[in-house]
Amino acid sequence: MFLAANQIPDMINMAGGLPESSIYPQSELADLAKQAITKYPGDSLDYGPIEGLTALRELIALRFSSENLPLNKDNVLITTGGMQGLDLVGKALLDEDDIVACQSPAYLGALDAWRPRQPIYRPFFPEEPGFNPTEALTGAKFAYTVPNFSNPSGKLIDSKTRRSLVAAAKEIGTWLIEDDPYGTLYYDHPPLERMISLSGSAEENNYSGPIIYLGTLSKELAPGFRVGWAIADKKMIASLTVTKQGSDMCSSGLTQRIAYDALTNELDRQTLPKILDIYRGRRDQLCKAMEDHLSDWFHWEVPVGGMFVWAVAKKPNFNTDQLLKYAMQEKVCVTPSSVFDPEGNNARAIRINFTRNPEEKLIEGVRRIALACRAMTKETI
Amino acid sequence: MFLAANQIPDMINMAGGLPESSIYPQSELADLAKQAITKYPGDSLDYGPIEGLTALRELIALRFSSENLPLNKDNVLITTGGMQGLDLVGKALLDEDDIVACQSPAYLGALDAWRPRQPIYRPFFPEEPGFNPTEALTGAKFAYTVPNFSNPSGKLIDSKTRRSLVAAAKEIGTWLIEDDPYGTLYYDHPPLERMISLSGSAEENNYSGPIIYLGTLSKELAPGFRVGWAIADKKMIASLTVTKQGSDMCSSGLTQRIAYDALTNELDRQTLPKILDIYRGRRDQLCKAMEDHLSDWFHWEVPVGGMFVWAVAKKPNFNTDQLLKYAMQEKVCVTPSSVFDPEGNNARAIRINFTRNPEEKLIEGVRRIALACRAMTKETI
Repeated sequence: MFLAANQIPDMINMAGGLPESSIYPQSELADLAKQAITKYPGDSLDYGPIEGLTALRELIALRFSSENLPLNKDNVLITTGGMQGLDLVGKALLDEDDIVACQSPAYLGALDAWRPRQPIYRPFFPEEPGFNPTEALTGAKFAYTVPNFSNPSGKLIDSKTRRSLVAAAKEIGTWLIEDDPYGTLYYDHPPLERMISLSGSAEENNYSGPIIYLGTLSKELAPGFRVGWAIADKKMIASLTVTKQGSDMCSSGLTQRIAYDALTNELDRQTLPKILDIYRGRRDQLCKAMEDHLSDWFHWEVPVGGMFVWAVAKKPNFNTDQLLKYAMQEKVCVTPSSVFDPEGNNARAIRINFTRNPEEKLIEGVRRIALACRAMTKETI
Repeated sequence: MFLAANQIPDMINMAGGLPESSIYPQSELADLAKQAITKYPGDSLDYGPIEGLTALRELIALRFSSENLPLNKDNVLITTGGMQGLDLVGKALLDEDDIVACQSPAYLGALDAWRPRQPIYRPFFPEEPGFNPTEALTGAKFAYTVPNFSNPSGKLIDSKTRRSLVAAAKEIGTWLIEDDPYGTLYYDHPPLERMISLSGSAEENNYSGPIIYLGTLSKELAPGFRVGWAIADKKMIASLTVTKQGSDMCSSGLTQRIAYDALTNELDRQTLPKILDIYRGRRDQLCKAMEDHLSDWFHWEVPVGGMFVWAVAKKPNFNTDQLLKYAMQEKVCVTPSSVFDPEGNNARAIRINFTRNPEEKLIEGVRRIALACRAMTKETI
């Protein structure tokens, strides 16, 4: 249905999770692509190491290192996008009927990646009062979190809860996945410290904590490169590398080489302020339009980062699966909450993306959602 | 050990399976890479469809179509290299304790890809007299074959056996994987008809046979692009697409776009004759040198294609795992047969690659293998 939405003329699609494509540093990347093949044909055209290009692994290790987090290339595996990191973790760790403790609501992609291995998903809610991390993690093969602007809720796990999750993971001896595709997209204040950094120690000379951190260049450089990485204890990286060999042998050498040169030239760091300005403006305009048109039906929190607003219906019997049908007639598309619920029961919320469309389209899209709400509630009553 | 071999100066490494890198059409690919980003930023930088770029799927469908094999894009899934096709087939089809009928000896990569799903491997030997395909395939979830120059044996499955395998798969209702990374590398006669083509029918308007065909551009264009494809019945392609979403979301748009433009410009077809000339010459020189230096210890068939010579020791107690230690001292590296045996028992053969090294290095490599054989047999006696 969401793919079909792009085929309908005048459809305003706020369902996806795509970046604004005009922000990619296109001409610089085009030059780097040509240079990668002419100057580094060994890196870009040949089979590469399973773990990824050594220079890129060293650069990622350097960028993520801090006093408390001593990293080197052996802590880094390059993956085919952030998504592959999730797949490899499942392959390396999960057996049938293993328990996965999952921050809820959870990213659909993660659940899909692991579903073939038939784990048991046990949800936890880190932002609820009285949340007990030890209880949440006990008995799980690993815990899955998106601390920065979790998809779909847009929620941020606060610093205190991050520390308590890290402490619980260490105490119990459970792996804790920090999936971080939105970690640079903070609009209102500087980023909180990552859990992998909180879990490290200046006394070590190599990281040996319980975090498996998953990052990606898809948000700042270009998703079409499919360059992501896992950072973890070097024994875990070795296990993930074995599973990567049987998954796709190695990631594209060409896009890894371009990524390395782009990061060395700090293209991503030059692009990021522009991205943040654009996305902040879009978030603000979307939320203002929602205030004007949708507050009769929904409540929401203005997200401090990420790509989505998560709006929950005020009335418990409001059905967003049904709303989507009316919305499609009004030529607007959002993601209903049922697709994020493994049982498909939660039909009370919608996820609205604000990164892909310009402000005037977001405002028009909200107006159309309001028309759909009105049409549905009129017919239902 | 094989990776380490590349770090030792003067080592002649005949263990890998790498193409000769000078044959990649480097300057053309560099221009196409730049053009892909400047002219087609949507294709190359954004997230693409899970199934792959539509234009590339259509082109692959067209190239593989024939009167008996009516294909369209719905029969084609783009994969991250040929290796990913194997992984996706395992994810889509295998449950624990399922039987996989495997042409033996088998490609290590395939076994590794499926091992996490714990299938039971049942070998079959299509070149042996009295081979019974129905017996080989009955009860298996799928059968795995490399009809063209199977790795490591370099064997070709003849046309009659191909037909009988297809007939058995149809009769029993088993999927039959035709893994074809070496399908264009014929040095002595034109390629035999593919099983997917033998299994099609001019009466259909869309392929619905039992073959899952896996192809790749790694041998003719560049492995660093990680562009491969699966061709099958469209329902099977739909299943594989679901598993691909949870594996890496989509393959690199940039390398898919370059691949599409390279194929449209027939760069691969211009390159192939040069590749065949080089590889044919190397095979001939390798086999001549083996005749001169190794015939006391080994026998082998001169392969009519592919990348490897499979040499079996004349004496049954000759141990090639041990030989490798002597070979490393002589600064030459080959692959011992134990790594292709799931139980690790077969230590009687070696696989020698002839595509990566120039002729004089191959000749010197064989001379060194002979020195290693002499050193080992002297000590052992």
